[in-house]
Amino acid sequence: METTNVKAYGTEAADAPLKQMDIQRRNASAKDIEIDILYCGVCHSDLHTARNDWGFTTYPTVVGHEIVGKVTKVGSEVTKLKVGDFAAVGCLVGSCHTCDNCKHDLEQYCSNGWIGTYNSPDKYLGGMTYGGYSEKIVVEEHFVLKVPANLNLAATAPLLCAGITTWSPLRHWKVGKGSKVAVVGLGGLGHMAIKLAKGLGAEVTLFSRTPGKEKDALELGADAVIISTETSQMAAVGGKFDLIIDTVPYVHDINPYVATLNTNGTLVLVGYLGGLEPFLNTVPMIMGRKSVAGSLIGGIAETQEMLDFCGEHNIVSEIEIIKMQEINEAYERMLKSDVRYRFVIDMASLKA
Amino acid sequence: METTNVKAYGTEAADAPLKQMDIQRRNASAKDIEIDILYCGVCHSDLHTARNDWGFTTYPTVVGHEIVGKVTKVGSEVTKLKVGDFAAVGCLVGSCHTCDNCKHDLEQYCSNGWIGTYNSPDKYLGGMTYGGYSEKIVVEEHFVLKVPANLNLAATAPLLCAGITTWSPLRHWKVGKGSKVAVVGLGGLGHMAIKLAKGLGAEVTLFSRTPGKEKDALELGADAVIISTETSQMAAVGGKFDLIIDTVPYVHDINPYVATLNTNGTLVLVGYLGGLEPFLNTVPMIMGRKSVAGSLIGGIAETQEMLDFCGEHNIVSEIEIIKMQEINEAYERMLKSDVRYRFVIDMASLKA
Repeated sequence: METTNVKAYGTEAADAPLKQMDIQRRNASAKDIEIDILYCGVCHSDLHTARNDWGFTTYPTVVGHEIVGKVTKVGSEVTKLKVGDFAAVGCLVGSCHTCDNCKHDLEQYCSNGWIGTYNSPDKYLGGMTYGGYSEKIVVEEHFVLKVPANLNLAATAPLLCAGITTWSPLRHWKVGKGSKVAVVGLGGLGHMAIKLAKGLGAEVTLFSRTPGKEKDALELGADAVIISTETSQMAAVGGKFDLIIDTVPYVHDINPYVATLNTNGTLVLVGYLGGLEPFLNTVPMIMGRKSVAGSLIGGIAETQEMLDFCGEHNIVSEIEIIKMQEINEAYERMLKSDVRYRFVIDMASLKA
Repeated sequence: METTNVKAYGTEAADAPLKQMDIQRRNASAKDIEIDILYCGVCHSDLHTARNDWGFTTYPTVVGHEIVGKVTKVGSEVTKLKVGDFAAVGCLVGSCHTCDNCKHDLEQYCSNGWIGTYNSPDKYLGGMTYGGYSEKIVVEEHFVLKVPANLNLAATAPLLCAGITTWSPLRHWKVGKGSKVAVVGLGGLGHMAIKLAKGLGAEVTLFSRTPGKEKDALELGADAVIISTETSQMAAVGGKFDLIIDTVPYVHDINPYVATLNTNGTLVLVGYLGGLEPFLNTVPMIMGRKSVAGSLIGGIAETQEMLDFCGEHNIVSEIEIIKMQEINEAYERMLKSDVRYRFVIDMASLKA
């Protein structure tokens, strides 16, 4: 298969900083779209993968799965986009298309294993897929999204992961006008959860451990902020919420949040992968038919739906633009939650 | 308020055996139905309450909430039943009727606290409510159920708790023809879950820790039995089930069962009250949008629906009839799971 050399920013070991390197991209075949990457959001998964926090990184790795850019080539069978259009790519670049989940537009739960935008087996070139910290990417048409013309392009990038990850549970659990939604954690995912839930007409509450985030949360659209370490504030919202989106990416006690679910309410985890410590108490779950669930990004059709919704409601992410060369420093700041609320790499810096 | 003296079987302390005692029943007022109790099922909750396993028993206590009998008096405003009709009472004898849950026929989740058939505050007589281990009971019409004429009366009693507790999640999670349902544990609840899920048209699998229950499970209607300690058998049903009803009443690892849920599947706990040990792993939950939920008995309308369904499908519990005087021995046998699958007290033995 013919390939083209492109500049990228990647790393060769868990303890090595990211640096410029060359990677190969396949030349677009009949069903492919080649995209000149303009912006790429910086997700916590990027950092976890670069540093092998989950133990399954293959090096060298080039991460990044919040990609927006401009179409530079389309294969002969492509109908979705044409050269010059703006386009986006999220966390998925492949799935089997034949399993029951794929047939129901749930590529993110593909029974035969979906192909991630980075660090997944690359069926075209062998080796692993390389993500958006690069000049260009070539992706099957099915996994390329259209970008609403009215949205700020850089601020759209984080919608491709932080946006869809919170949108999918909002839609699956049927949030709409009159719904009472709470969001745990105000980071990249949390701030999108507030904006999207609000856009859907819900009453939105932020749970935060620190008082400092109240002003920001209200500006983002939250109706209320509850300091989760204040027992009286937590008691005041006991049994209130239909859906809680818990975006916290590290182990934490979810029992106090379960207590704030209404009958039939669901707490959905989108950030934390691991064991629920301390033990999840079944008593309030049984006494109120409450659920604890998980949710992973979203399917392609649902991602397009979310982008279109954001176009209609003028919703984008709050971002801080960085240069590609600032990524290692940005990772350190992310570890200190020192970002409001998503770093986005201006890819012109890589091309310069 | 005028009362009548009736014979009952109760206990005065956690470590005392049950024995015959006299209790007072209120005389039926305008909205009350007085029932001559013919049979009362023996639920694990009876044992836990009699022995104060949950720490909130008020003594003396008279337990029993799987009650069937014959109407002997009705108040002037009663329209549901008349003297001579067969009637049933389950776990609930009161709720506020005004909260959102009560208004939606979810009395079991009454926001103002439902009144249990035993060991709940008795708003008529003060003290605590006394349950079905007695000659008679007087209950508000709203909480009295009609019994289908074709069902064996003694074998109907366990439907009032074991039946509705498994019916409610089957209905809430929309089990029907084509659904794949698994049941964890083959006891009073488990055997009803198999019969009811099968009655609703589902494909039903029993998870059991011991091979000995296979024959029974298949006779009860299960399509398959998976020995949960056999890794290869568990792997063979990975990602299979839409709903798992977990009836096990003690702490146990639910992670192996979560692995057998399909995308969007739910494991609903109906038996175990406490912390989920070992830690519930969120990874498969997030990777497959799986839920862990709880469910408590069922509302009155739903209980009537279940009884009517059992009438139409000729479904009753598998029972062993005992005399009231054999209850202490029956409790010991229950602790050894030595019952197929529910003890039912023939209340004639108390009246003799």
